[in-house]
Amino acid sequence: MIPEGVGYLWGVQVAIIGLGGIGASVGLAIQHEALGWGVVGYDVAPDALTGALQMGAIDHPAESVAACACADLIVIATPPLAMPEVFQQLAPRLRPETALTDVASVKSPVLRWAEAYLPYLSRFVGGHPIAGTEHHGVRAARADLFHGAPWALTPTAQTDPDALQRVEAFVQTLRAAPLTIDAAQHDREFALLSFVPHAIAFSLAALHRENPTTVPPGGSWRSATRVAQSDPTLWAQLMALNREPTREWLEQLIQRLQTLADALGQGDPRTIQGRLCPQDAHAPDEP
Amino acid sequence: MIPEGVGYLWGVQVAIIGLGGIGASVGLAIQHEALGWGVVGYDVAPDALTGALQMGAIDHPAESVAACACADLIVIATPPLAMPEVFQQLAPRLRPETALTDVASVKSPVLRWAEAYLPYLSRFVGGHPIAGTEHHGVRAARADLFHGAPWALTPTAQTDPDALQRVEAFVQTLRAAPLTIDAAQHDREFALLSFVPHAIAFSLAALHRENPTTVPPGGSWRSATRVAQSDPTLWAQLMALNREPTREWLEQLIQRLQTLADALGQGDPRTIQGRLCPQDAHAPDEP
Repeated sequence: MIPEGVGYLWGVQVAIIGLGGIGASVGLAIQHEALGWGVVGYDVAPDALTGALQMGAIDHPAESVAACACADLIVIATPPLAMPEVFQQLAPRLRPETALTDVASVKSPVLRWAEAYLPYLSRFVGGHPIAGTEHHGVRAARADLFHGAPWALTPTAQTDPDALQRVEAFVQTLRAAPLTIDAAQHDREFALLSFVPHAIAFSLAALHRENPTTVPPGGSWRSATRVAQSDPTLWAQLMALNREPTREWLEQLIQRLQTLADALGQGDPRTIQGRLCPQDAHAPDEP
Repeated sequence: MIPEGVGYLWGVQVAIIGLGGIGASVGLAIQHEALGWGVVGYDVAPDALTGALQMGAIDHPAESVAACACADLIVIATPPLAMPEVFQQLAPRLRPETALTDVASVKSPVLRWAEAYLPYLSRFVGGHPIAGTEHHGVRAARADLFHGAPWALTPTAQTDPDALQRVEAFVQTLRAAPLTIDAAQHDREFALLSFVPHAIAFSLAALHRENPTTVPPGGSWRSATRVAQSDPTLWAQLMALNREPTREWLEQLIQRLQTLADALGQGDPRTIQGRLCPQDAHAPDEP
């Protein structure tokens, strides 16, 4: 159902380029929430295109990226390294009134590609839904994936207010909560909030594969490694694109873990507690 | 309901020493599953004792550890550092037929204390339910906490088979699945499976407290830090008691994270993927 106040998006034609878990979820969410919108979809993989069509995430398959260019709103949901080519293929056919957004977990490189390749830069608004799971691919799509989820948008000084308003209305239609943030700050904060947890999960899972245990893992292990089921190729791309902030947080975490390892070598419970939980370092011991 | 085959435990008197989340859950589970058992409970904190009585986790409060000594089965569920004193207080009054077990996440030190202080060492069987959550204290108790959960038992060459059988029957009555494992191997495996995830969760939470973000964390952060809500005093004690295995796994993890940080410094997505997911290092790139 279209929420009050965004009725002017009635009848828009949306194109979704890239029909993985996020792209297909965008399609499903539109079909559930936005009466009268038409959804065109494209994916380089014929299976994803067919799957999205069968599950009703898109109304019409497009035969190329370029065939998506004349939509009112274009949502780019490909892996990030495919985006420069997507921008280049769209560029010659874009109309000045079309708004564009994306869903990548890293925003500064996307803005640089938009600057380099898009004819109407002011119409592009970077986006990142803070949703998604460790499951990936078109079969992981869910119509309610974005319900109540924050959705970061990274407009710049050059962004056309109308384009921002359209993308915000689109996000609200999917029942997510738009928030605007500077792209560099976004990338630095998510390096900690998302990239480091993924780095840890992949590393723990690899450590366990090389050192299998006889006892089954409990809840703390399952939580710590849940996102190790994510696509490692995608995450390697994302980390390469957000490498400095991710490296800096990782180095800080390594330093903390090293001081904890050193305290373990020494063996005093109070020192260990101080390293685990610095704000409790002076708390009284409660046996 | 008492499962078939453990009927000989009908009418046993159980004493639970330590009525935190695990101890009180043992009491609730007995009340739900074991018709005819009587449960005596003790805790050094009057609040915990009253709470356990009010929620029906115990039938009778005991006025001291020593007052628990004449039960048929004694379950020690105190913080680990309290256990040497509990063993000492029980020792003078223990009967040779009483079976004892505990629920600590670390097993070798508990065996050493049992050897040092218990008059009938053969009647002690170390135990560790692979259950529990980040919530702690008597209010976190749940009757179904152990349903389907593995429950490690660490008998030794000195263990009386009758004591092991009784503790196994007790565990099964609580609907958990007993598994026997050598104490040192248990401690080494859980250092990886549980202690390292706790070390990471506490460290990430501390890093975030010192570097708050403006955007709300998503699912990967929440999973990675869930157990940082656990009791840091308890975890500092446990880590001190299992310090060598925990330190060794932490050092291995640090080394892995460092090679990933180095790859991020260099910036090649394929190298990064090889560090994230070594078994996929030679997989073809799928953009």
